[in-house]
Amino acid sequence: MLYFNCDYMTGAHPEVLKALWETNLLHTEGYGNDCFTSEAKRIILNACGLDDGAVYFLQGGTQTNKIVIDRLLSRNDGVLCCESGHINVHESGAIEADGHKVISLPSDNGKISAESIRVYIRDFYRDDTYIHMVRPAMVYISHPTEFGTLYTLRELKGISEVCREADIPLFIDGARLAYGLAADGTDVTLKDIANLSDVFYIGGTKCGALFGEAVVSRRPELLPRFESLMKLHGALLAKGRLVPLQFITLFSDKLYYHIGHHADILAIKLKQGFIEKGYRVFIDSPTNQQFFVMPNTKIDSLKSEVGMGLWGPPGETESVVRFVTDWSTTEEDIDSLLSLI
Amino acid sequence: MLYFNCDYMTGAHPEVLKALWETNLLHTEGYGNDCFTSEAKRIILNACGLDDGAVYFLQGGTQTNKIVIDRLLSRNDGVLCCESGHINVHESGAIEADGHKVISLPSDNGKISAESIRVYIRDFYRDDTYIHMVRPAMVYISHPTEFGTLYTLRELKGISEVCREADIPLFIDGARLAYGLAADGTDVTLKDIANLSDVFYIGGTKCGALFGEAVVSRRPELLPRFESLMKLHGALLAKGRLVPLQFITLFSDKLYYHIGHHADILAIKLKQGFIEKGYRVFIDSPTNQQFFVMPNTKIDSLKSEVGMGLWGPPGETESVVRFVTDWSTTEEDIDSLLSLI
Amino acid sequence: MLYFNCDYMTGAHPEVLKALWETNLLHTEGYGNDCFTSEAKRIILNACGLDDGAVYFLQGGTQTNKIVIDRLLSRNDGVLCCESGHINVHESGAIEADGHKVISLPSDNGKISAESIRVYIRDFYRDDTYIHMVRPAMVYISHPTEFGTLYTLRELKGISEVCREADIPLFIDGARLAYGLAADGTDVTLKDIANLSDVFYIGGTKCGALFGEAVVSRRPELLPRFESLMKLHGALLAKGRLVPLQFITLFSDKLYYHIGHHADILAIKLKQGFIEKGYRVFIDSPTNQQFFVMPNTKIDSLKSEVGMGLWGPPGETESVVRFVTDWSTTEEDIDSLLSLI
Amino acid sequence: MLYFNCDYMTGAHPEVLKALWETNLLHTEGYGNDCFTSEAKRIILNACGLDDGAVYFLQGGTQTNKIVIDRLLSRNDGVLCCESGHINVHESGAIEADGHKVISLPSDNGKISAESIRVYIRDFYRDDTYIHMVRPAMVYISHPTEFGTLYTLRELKGISEVCREADIPLFIDGARLAYGLAADGTDVTLKDIANLSDVFYIGGTKCGALFGEAVVSRRPELLPRFESLMKLHGALLAKGRLVPLQFITLFSDKLYYHIGHHADILAIKLKQGFIEKGYRVFIDSPTNQQFFVMPNTKIDSLKSEVGMGLWGPPGETESVVRFVTDWSTTEEDIDSLLSLI
Repeated sequence: MLYFNCDYMTGAHPEVLKALWETNLLHTEGYGNDCFTSEAKRIILNACGLDDGAVYFLQGGTQTNKIVIDRLLSRNDGVLCCESGHINVHESGAIEADGHKVISLPSDNGKISAESIRVYIRDFYRDDTYIHMVRPAMVYISHPTEFGTLYTLRELKGISEVCREADIPLFIDGARLAYGLAADGTDVTLKDIANLSDVFYIGGTKCGALFGEAVVSRRPELLPRFESLMKLHGALLAKGRLVPLQFITLFSDKLYYHIGHHADILAIKLKQGFIEKGYRVFIDSPTNQQFFVMPNTKIDSLKSEVGMGLWGPPGETESVVRFVTDWSTTEEDIDSLLSLI
Repeated sequence: MLYFNCDYMTGAHPEVLKALWETNLLHTEGYGNDCFTSEAKRIILNACGLDDGAVYFLQGGTQTNKIVIDRLLSRNDGVLCCESGHINVHESGAIEADGHKVISLPSDNGKISAESIRVYIRDFYRDDTYIHMVRPAMVYISHPTEFGTLYTLRELKGISEVCREADIPLFIDGARLAYGLAADGTDVTLKDIANLSDVFYIGGTKCGALFGEAVVSRRPELLPRFESLMKLHGALLAKGRLVPLQFITLFSDKLYYHIGHHADILAIKLKQGFIEKGYRVFIDSPTNQQFFVMPNTKIDSLKSEVGMGLWGPPGETESVVRFVTDWSTTEEDIDSLLSLI
Repeated sequence: MLYFNCDYMTGAHPEVLKALWETNLLHTEGYGNDCFTSEAKRIILNACGLDDGAVYFLQGGTQTNKIVIDRLLSRNDGVLCCESGHINVHESGAIEADGHKVISLPSDNGKISAESIRVYIRDFYRDDTYIHMVRPAMVYISHPTEFGTLYTLRELKGISEVCREADIPLFIDGARLAYGLAADGTDVTLKDIANLSDVFYIGGTKCGALFGEAVVSRRPELLPRFESLMKLHGALLAKGRLVPLQFITLFSDKLYYHIGHHADILAIKLKQGFIEKGYRVFIDSPTNQQFFVMPNTKIDSLKSEVGMGLWGPPGETESVVRFVTDWSTTEEDIDSLLSLI
Repeated sequence: MLYFNCDYMTGAHPEVLKALWETNLLHTEGYGNDCFTSEAKRIILNACGLDDGAVYFLQGGTQTNKIVIDRLLSRNDGVLCCESGHINVHESGAIEADGHKVISLPSDNGKISAESIRVYIRDFYRDDTYIHMVRPAMVYISHPTEFGTLYTLRELKGISEVCREADIPLFIDGARLAYGLAADGTDVTLKDIANLSDVFYIGGTKCGALFGEAVVSRRPELLPRFESLMKLHGALLAKGRLVPLQFITLFSDKLYYHIGHHADILAIKLKQGFIEKGYRVFIDSPTNQQFFVMPNTKIDSLKSEVGMGLWGPPGETESVVRFVTDWSTTEEDIDSLLSLI
């Protein structure tokens, strides 16, 4: 069986698990008052080029989006988001559950433009009835997006500028950030992400960790009493060191980058193989998620040997299928897949 | 000054205020345990052609939408709604504030079609990831819509049928129901509304009452412990008789229908006048709200003599303007307006 | 039948209803953009001795408590409150429904002491685990309390001082403020309430209005975007003038004070009559609510002629009963009641 | 340094970590659709003596309490709980954040009695105003309690019976269940817990797991669409197998019981040592948490060598201190501690 369903099918990168193993018997205080947490914060801020800032560790992507957004928004505020954004589609209403409207903007391959944000905000305040409407009070984007696509540095700067003009924070969901940073042709670095966003998170779960995400902000004042809010959301792990420990490993010897690079290289090889075989690329992604239009009959015949993911509801005769690589994918896996299609 | 801004610029229809005046000194118990409440329930159920059912009295439209939806939805449920629907645009996020996602469907002049609902629900359950998505668990429509348009009986039956197939309730917002029921050419009656919806409300605030709306359901089991929920939302009036008293008047001598008829007749006259003067009708409404595209210069010059409402943000050279009639509008008001444009 | 059940059994004081009647046909803009709203604000601020400040109009007490508290508290904050406080007992969980914990302190006849607040806050921050606990972020008191009792000026100053020290706002629920201001022996004025609280409300519903409450704050910055929040809670009345119109009347010719005075005088006469007949006073209230311990047999025999309210669950042989006076109570009503007991 | 601060200071019991290690490279589907999840469910139901039932895996105690309670309660419902209960004190308002009131009952060493629940419910429904009050709609208890105490089988049966009479579910928080099941003198088994509760959870985090809790219910219909609700709360782990994998180990070879037994034996030895040295026992606990009253001077002098936890705010001259044992505590640790006090 070949596994291309998603990037969270195995446990953790062996180095990460090794770190948990080696520190297992050490005693530390709970809830983040431990040396690993402070060490991981230091390492992450350093990698982000930030002298100062806030770093918090959470367990998963939806949880992270939910809590950061809950902190950034006031009661009668909403978050601007691409209509295909994860928070708008695949989080079971986690944002609304906390009382906040997700205001969707048209998607351009999973991305929104600075211009669409600017126009929305301008029109909002020009509407006489805006007091009855949900204030657009922050912007959420994902990088890579849910379609594997990436913003260019120029696009990110544009969005960041719009947010500063409107005095609302920009939050970047980096669930798959490793694959974005290592992508061929990208001009966006971790330091850019850290400086252009107000808050962002570095994905661990889908990038080699057992589980866990790291929220980073160059503006700690935006996240007051955040541990207490994490607790309220059931997200303050008793053994607070578990996630930072993993991030210490991921950010040693550039492991995080290498994981991304490995998966991206294989994903591009996979894409080229599909193109050569005549498949239509649904979205041209430079990262570890690849999307193709495939005949339903082909999909059915592959199912017993290849794990993959249907993207949206199936079509009449053909459907969109997603193939995902990660640190555990091998060159042989790609070759085997390509020989089957 | 002429007033066409909206249908809630005066107090109440004089007959309504008279009823409050005449009963003012009577002593009744609070919170709905009074004879006027039970009398109004009886009268309303009778007008709806229902032998049995639930009737509750609230103070305003957003409050009513908010509380009914909060009762009909479970925690991880959403409400399907036209993208221009009141709950999706003009209620400050009142639905989301209670934790529920508003799932918007494309608008056809303020209406959604049975087919678009059917397709959404079908695709939802065909998506492998639907467990991570917000379940479409009820349908909200308004009649008349926010654009003054009306569903036909056939359209309503279609939507009702889709809801029954999917086993989810249909809720009809009747904030301006009087104008819908009395519109020229409509084939939808109050009894149709009562039977095709699971829950709906009869608007009072915009239809001659001082304030107040009446929630009606042929399925009382859908609204368990509703008074307690009203209390939780700060919507259980101490003097519970105030709203039912007004509805008793509105539903005596067909006053509710006459109010709607009066305003609709004048609105159509207004529309014809605008058309004759060469204005472009933005949406062809048969009820008391009329929308025209007007040059910004014209709008500016009218402002000092005519109250009206900009619809959405203004355009570069022309904008959409709404004119609204109600029980207090006179034939002379229309003539004066038409002489000015 | 004699009515002592509560202070919201009739409509409104005739002067109030007259004002609604006289202004009924005037056209004004909706949602508070009208001359009556601004006039009422001016009059109320003046009566409170405030040069500047915020005034908002709502429809009922629970709604007012709910929305003010929702604005004053952040997500992971709670409100300190007497265990018998209205928000802790009789609002169907309206505060918790918005996500806020009500932290109860022991009741002393419906009151809490500055000292109990001070100790709670001190101990809270001395507890090593306080990050896992709900921060006491505001104080709620009612004046008069749910038991009809009153704070002295000295007590109020003490509570106000504790709140300033802790930098948390003090909110005073004045649902029955008229009866408190007019009580014999009180040394607390409306100006004291306005200056010692951060936010408070002047009760209308139970003090002569048809319905409505007026929120007042000498610190408008504490209530940002309050109309939008009211809308979110379904509490922004379309005909925004309805409540301020009533307050203009209540605050003309000292009507608000006279209403309170009238009811208090009769309540004291009622209490003296009960004492003379040998009944035990349950709580010694100087305002319009009076509480007595009565044999269940006596209660049963009175029921057919006298409306009154059981206070809490009934006891085995005797129970606590509440008798309430208001503007519509007459001297004859008191005499008749006393002749029956 | 000696560590008695809490039972979550190390990673996991080595057997648990070994299981994660050995399965690390296996590919499984995400979100609980894997063989380990189904295997763990089978093993746990079997250990509970249940033929059928629901089992769900979560990451921490507060998260588990929050989500189970959110599912069991309707909008205008509250949960009855000991005033010292974890959900009432140490979860940052996690229950209220979802809109539910925690209704506290007096604590008897961390326990509530069937009688106090019965009286509360009876009085609630005898109060004429109960429609304005929060309905007591479920009962929450912890076993062991926050004070380390245990219910007897008879007490549990009594509470279970009251809940059945009132037709409300009983939820048992078993964050430290291992220590309860293995305690000397207890007559309560895992099967009793499973049968007397409607829903309960088996604590992993504090009982040898890296992290994780297992929710169990003999009545799956009480937890409809639970995974979707977990997602909404940010609690559906992508690598769904991580927690069940640990529970498979904990429930193999009675490891869960042995962990509890080991810690309890040492805790009792610790208690006896303290008593012999003349310390006052604050609460007589038979499980792994022990509480003593100690002079502040003694506490200060021990601090540099012994990790322990202050219980509540410190007193003037003496304070309550908690000492906790777990699987990693050794006989030598106890001896060393006793030699220091």
